[in-house]
Amino acid sequence: MIIKKQNMKQETRKGMRNGPGEVKISHMVPGDSIINGRLMAELSLEPGSGIGLHRHDKETEYYIITEGSGLVTEDDGKKDVIKGDIVVTGNGQSHSIENTGDTVLKFIAVIITE
Amino acid sequence: MIIKKQNMKQETRKGMRNGPGEVKISHMVPGDSIINGRLMAELSLEPGSGIGLHRHDKETEYYIITEGSGLVTEDDGKKDVIKGDIVVTGNGQSHSIENTGDTVLKFIAVIITE
Repeated sequence: MIIKKQNMKQETRKGMRNGPGEVKISHMVPGDSIINGRLMAELSLEPGSGIGLHRHDKETEYYIITEGSGLVTEDDGKKDVIKGDIVVTGNGQSHSIENTGDTVLKFIAVIITE
Repeated sequence: MIIKKQNMKQETRKGMRNGPGEVKISHMVPGDSIINGRLMAELSLEPGSGIGLHRHDKETEYYIITEGSGLVTEDDGKKDVIKGDIVVTGNGQSHSIENTGDTVLKFIAVIITE
């Protein structure tokens, strides 16, 4: 099955996980259609926007950075990310992400459940 | 955990699934590190290269097209894909993909197992 970009469900969330600004979410597939998963989406954050710190239990979230750059906070500190990097967060770990660059930050978020 | 692009395992496969040309694979995470999954990688195909028809049982593969364009064959026919589209193949279905454009075709492949 092929889902065209223009047919994906769009969503805008302000203050996502108590982060600054807003996050545009393009759901590539409906979350409830994924066996052993619950999210596969492209997220877009303008400079200054972010997703606040949150924890993943019994699931792993992957952020695949596809455009721009940002700052990720994990349990062991803050780290820069750029296009091509991946952030892996599971097993009770937490993460946040903020667009600290001057261009849009885009990443694909995938959550695989246990 | 953050994995930088330059630290990802690179692989080149010729005649992948009996397809034409070769496929460059950048493994974003080791396949065996994924709970309920076995692949998360960026695949790059030059014009004319492709991955031959193959079937997915007890798992679903997602191709998230990130650059270029191509032609996908599914059980019900051939379909064009471009940047932003997603190909979803599971439940005993088959797919193949070929770069029919004149620029590199890139996509992120994710396999979630059942």
